[in-house]
Amino acid sequence: MLLLLSILLGQFAFAQKATWIWYPGDFEIDLANKMQNRRTDRNTFFPPFWKMDAHYVLMDFHTIVDLKEPETITVHAEGTFNLKLDGQAVESWVHQLYVPAGKHKINVKVWNEASAPAIFVQGKTIVSDNSWLVTFEDKEWIDESGKTSDISATKWLNAGSWNFNDPAQPPSKFKLPTRLIAAVSKTVNKNSTLVDFGKETFGFLKLHNLKGIGDLVIYYGESKEEALSETDAMTLDRLFINQKEAKDSVMPLSKAFRYVNIVREEGSVSFDDVSMLYEYADVKQRGAFTCSDTLINKIYDISKYTLELNTREFFIDGIKRDRWVWSGDAYQSYLMNYYSYFDNPTVTRTMMALRGKDPVTAHINTILDYTFYWFISVYDYYLYTGDKKFIEQFYPRMQSMMDYCLSRRDKNGLMEGLSGDWTFIDWAAGLSKKGEISFEQMLFARSLETMSLCADIANDKNNAEAYKKLAADIKQKVFSLYWNDQKQALVHSRVDGKQTENVTRYANMFGIFFNYFTEGQKQAVKQHVLLNDSIQKITTPYMRFYELEALCAMGEQPYVLNQMKSYWGGMLNLGATSFWEEYNPDKKGAEHLAMYGRKFGKSLCHAWGASPIYLLGKYYLGVIPTKPGYETYTVQPQLGGLQWMQGKVPTPDGDIDVYMSVKEIKITGACGTGTLLFKSKNKPVCKEGVIADKGNGNYELVIEKGKSYVVAYK
Amino acid sequence: MLLLLSILLGQFAFAQKATWIWYPGDFEIDLANKMQNRRTDRNTFFPPFWKMDAHYVLMDFHTIVDLKEPETITVHAEGTFNLKLDGQAVESWVHQLYVPAGKHKINVKVWNEASAPAIFVQGKTIVSDNSWLVTFEDKEWIDESGKTSDISATKWLNAGSWNFNDPAQPPSKFKLPTRLIAAVSKTVNKNSTLVDFGKETFGFLKLHNLKGIGDLVIYYGESKEEALSETDAMTLDRLFINQKEAKDSVMPLSKAFRYVNIVREEGSVSFDDVSMLYEYADVKQRGAFTCSDTLINKIYDISKYTLELNTREFFIDGIKRDRWVWSGDAYQSYLMNYYSYFDNPTVTRTMMALRGKDPVTAHINTILDYTFYWFISVYDYYLYTGDKKFIEQFYPRMQSMMDYCLSRRDKNGLMEGLSGDWTFIDWAAGLSKKGEISFEQMLFARSLETMSLCADIANDKNNAEAYKKLAADIKQKVFSLYWNDQKQALVHSRVDGKQTENVTRYANMFGIFFNYFTEGQKQAVKQHVLLNDSIQKITTPYMRFYELEALCAMGEQPYVLNQMKSYWGGMLNLGATSFWEEYNPDKKGAEHLAMYGRKFGKSLCHAWGASPIYLLGKYYLGVIPTKPGYETYTVQPQLGGLQWMQGKVPTPDGDIDVYMSVKEIKITGACGTGTLLFKSKNKPVCKEGVIADKGNGNYELVIEKGKSYVVAYK
Repeated sequence: MLLLLSILLGQFAFAQKATWIWYPGDFEIDLANKMQNRRTDRNTFFPPFWKMDAHYVLMDFHTIVDLKEPETITVHAEGTFNLKLDGQAVESWVHQLYVPAGKHKINVKVWNEASAPAIFVQGKTIVSDNSWLVTFEDKEWIDESGKTSDISATKWLNAGSWNFNDPAQPPSKFKLPTRLIAAVSKTVNKNSTLVDFGKETFGFLKLHNLKGIGDLVIYYGESKEEALSETDAMTLDRLFINQKEAKDSVMPLSKAFRYVNIVREEGSVSFDDVSMLYEYADVKQRGAFTCSDTLINKIYDISKYTLELNTREFFIDGIKRDRWVWSGDAYQSYLMNYYSYFDNPTVTRTMMALRGKDPVTAHINTILDYTFYWFISVYDYYLYTGDKKFIEQFYPRMQSMMDYCLSRRDKNGLMEGLSGDWTFIDWAAGLSKKGEISFEQMLFARSLETMSLCADIANDKNNAEAYKKLAADIKQKVFSLYWNDQKQALVHSRVDGKQTENVTRYANMFGIFFNYFTEGQKQAVKQHVLLNDSIQKITTPYMRFYELEALCAMGEQPYVLNQMKSYWGGMLNLGATSFWEEYNPDKKGAEHLAMYGRKFGKSLCHAWGASPIYLLGKYYLGVIPTKPGYETYTVQPQLGGLQWMQGKVPTPDGDIDVYMSVKEIKITGACGTGTLLFKSKNKPVCKEGVIADKGNGNYELVIEKGKSYVVAYK
Repeated sequence: MLLLLSILLGQFAFAQKATWIWYPGDFEIDLANKMQNRRTDRNTFFPPFWKMDAHYVLMDFHTIVDLKEPETITVHAEGTFNLKLDGQAVESWVHQLYVPAGKHKINVKVWNEASAPAIFVQGKTIVSDNSWLVTFEDKEWIDESGKTSDISATKWLNAGSWNFNDPAQPPSKFKLPTRLIAAVSKTVNKNSTLVDFGKETFGFLKLHNLKGIGDLVIYYGESKEEALSETDAMTLDRLFINQKEAKDSVMPLSKAFRYVNIVREEGSVSFDDVSMLYEYADVKQRGAFTCSDTLINKIYDISKYTLELNTREFFIDGIKRDRWVWSGDAYQSYLMNYYSYFDNPTVTRTMMALRGKDPVTAHINTILDYTFYWFISVYDYYLYTGDKKFIEQFYPRMQSMMDYCLSRRDKNGLMEGLSGDWTFIDWAAGLSKKGEISFEQMLFARSLETMSLCADIANDKNNAEAYKKLAADIKQKVFSLYWNDQKQALVHSRVDGKQTENVTRYANMFGIFFNYFTEGQKQAVKQHVLLNDSIQKITTPYMRFYELEALCAMGEQPYVLNQMKSYWGGMLNLGATSFWEEYNPDKKGAEHLAMYGRKFGKSLCHAWGASPIYLLGKYYLGVIPTKPGYETYTVQPQLGGLQWMQGKVPTPDGDIDVYMSVKEIKITGACGTGTLLFKSKNKPVCKEGVIADKGNGNYELVIEKGKSYVVAYK
């Protein structure tokens, strides 16, 4: 008995963990397809306007094993498949393969048109995981004499995987989890029932004990006005009921709403109650922030909720209207993610979905700037996570995307919106999109810098150098062509080779946190642009993100804190339970709900509204990686007028804890080596480490992994 | 009553014919996917080794109409869809749309991952057909003010269609028709039943009144030896039967066979009879040939049957083994098709399936020469059919394929097989594939000539000129680098910049019918290569096709007739009921069945075995188009030793009838303007036209469309 147990235990100890695997990007592209084609507009299918790619339909997976003992593997596949052992196909459509001891190659080849070919292989030691190699083109053929071809040019990638560790739950069946949430209040009228869930939410509406014969229409509203507007509510469901026995009924499509108005159009349909299945992504909240200011705490919490709602299969723009994956929007979510979930799969999944497949036929989301954000997002991803593998695998797709850009430069080597390109920049009334726009060149330069970095990682040294030169050239042009000494700023654009008179905030604020300006230019820009009310104001949280980041990067935390309180606080004053796509304090009443020429066109829960998460984590708690994956990082906490604050910043290897009051800093390292940077009038004191005096009241303290420090300062 | 009838008739008279439409190439690529992934090898799934492409998953279809009266259209779609009238989506998932009188734009946007998005629209005057425009990337978005974007860069193609004229029979449900064929004989043994269908066939085996419990194995054989070989038969089905009530059972996968051996492995399974559902393409046999020689008639008939069996969803290589679509094989089927079915859809469908989608990651079928055949097949297709539209629509895919080739030239501007490329040429023992092979350069030159022609048609004048220059350069190099005055022939290859000593038939025979040689070179090549037994012999019907074509092109019809009789007649002597993949008269017995290192590896029904169809139509009946689509053509009949022959050659506009005996020629024109070219010792006589005397016994007669001529000559 004991012997048997020990044998069993022995086997368990050896058993490896298998997971479903696929060609990297393919599951992600399929999932994006499904997600983005779920949009409806007034009960009508509303798909994206850009090219949607698809998975490779035929895939070869292989691994090479060296077994001490023979074992039998079990294979599950999504698609029609075959199994080869050492190049020989195994007869019949079996799911099991006996692998003798010794060195062997195992291939599984899968064909699937409807969803990405995927496999799950479980043996005692042989398991499917991302050490397996995959190719959509094995080029392995047999000549007339029976000889196998040369496959030296076949390109393999490491398989993609996530958390599909159950053979019965394959990738194509993936769904986000849900939980039941009750309504907060219900107002029953003659032919309608208005239900309030108390705050913005997302999921599947549920009608309890629905019965009768007749038609119902469910109008969803992020605002009460929208739910009550039968003519203008953006989303609705029409139900044709013929049900004698009362039965709970869950709507098939998820919606965003706070209110629903259920209208009985005809017949005698009835229901008892209304609830909803709240649908959410299973990510863990790791970042945290609390402080002495209750309004800031409220803003942080609503930001967190806003990001939570928009963190789904992918980082999406907003939950009501399109639920599409937009590169510029996602870029901000990535940054917020590094200060909240630190969930790499959601970042890479979103980046893969956005990039799609070759050939490149348009900019990402058709938007010039969104292509650039995609490149820059890779730069940041690497800095925060240190994930080289992602870059090694996706560098070819980065290259073809950049080739597309380079092929569309104008005669001055600059990028402008060509026919069919959308030059977005921001939603801003009257903003000129003509000619060569400084902001686009700045993003282009940063994109080329990213390419240089990634070429290096992918061991493409020649191109690393070439991209570096191109980046330097564009960066130089940004200054030689757009800097205006009189205006002490970069102008907005050049048209027909001449500077325009217009100065906007965009290029000027990016120049600061990209660190492209000299110190003198920074100060000039701050005074003449950022703090200058005669420059067109920004009315989207999207660009306020960067505007406030630029000011934070220049140490204007007290100013930014007040801005946050008035801008995000302004939305809260208007009853926001999540942050909006656009907010212009000058508007009144229902004006706040309109956009895109529609009464309720605006999204009241937009990811880009959640930027306080990022600003508070990066510029108040002050934690910033300085080498990839937090191998080194700095902590430069700034109270910005608060009495105290405390919080957590996640890293690849645990969370960094930061507490600061006007006289004390407490910090716990988690990963790599940190440097605490702070100012003090008196000589600060720390028992746990040696504080270095950097002069002029500046001090530094080295933070080691896992160690806690308390610093007394003044 | 009469009034009502006339109204009804009036409506019928107006009703247009709708057909299912899709993005051109997408249905074809999907169908190729399905077809090529049906291969099994000893009951094991055996997919291709090259990249398989897929359809675009999201498609926008539109048309612009100008209605005198309003009408309501009905929409069927394969996929989730929406309908827009003048840019406005129609609420709800309706299948009908009311279109008011006047000018309107109708859009249908469809999403489908599993099969190509397709629609069928039927109204009184509005119907889906290939006048509709399609795009996978409409780039149509709405800005914050509600304004629609500029879509001037959106690229539309005309929709693809075929013959799906029934809304209930959408493209994804396409299947070839079948008909029941009985077995010819049945030998019942103790535990097995051997069934003979009398000749090579293809389809789904049917067991009548199958019942009992136990296992059956069905071994298929193109030969009796194969069916009886449980260890080496290439295809088999395993059945696990548990059936109390007798029931007919049809195998799910089609197979190629003449014999089947049904073996009861265990249990007590029984069946009454065996038949099969013969599966065939619904194409019409238009070409015909009969003559005074019964062996040639037999060869022609078996060729026809061989081509019929290999003409399926696509022109495939052979019905037993892979049933894949191979460019070099298909190229010959296209040519045979022009002298038999003249079925354009099967040609274009095959070309589209072979080309697949961008990006190009390998040669077609991974084979260098097969890429070139693909280009050249477009050239021929245009010459025979005059179909400019196909070229206009597919020119971009031709360009990207050629870009791939151009990017892989060596330092001498020549093409050689790089790592991962398969240089096929032919199945021939010891054939060198090293270095720069003359044959490949010749195909390359012809491909560039095709590109020049197509660039012209696609109105890409600059590239037309560029391709023309490139073609001339390669053509010049073929002669300057490979022509060997001593050998009076092109040598096989150059290795390390030096001519090799080897002379093979390949480049030399193509040079003749490409008309690249001078008259002197032709004669030299004929003597020193084609009729020279010391040059390695060709043992595949594949290359015999070109060898005999070269000889025919030089007027060697009597010699070729004898070659046909001995080579194809040789297979018939060995009992062939269809023509083979390879035939070497020197082999004995079961040696004829082996290939690829396998006992029954050889295909006994290979499309390339059917070339007598082409040779007899083109070089004996002698009908050749000289301007695209038979706008002009020549008829140069050659008896080649026959007493008489008669036949039909199809054209886009009817069949040309040709009869010739040693003293009479009868001909009926069908299309464009023909010129009969013939020799006569005496002055020939024709009542229906005026014969022009061209000197030296050469005469010409103009053949007008639809007119018949009888010429007496000697």
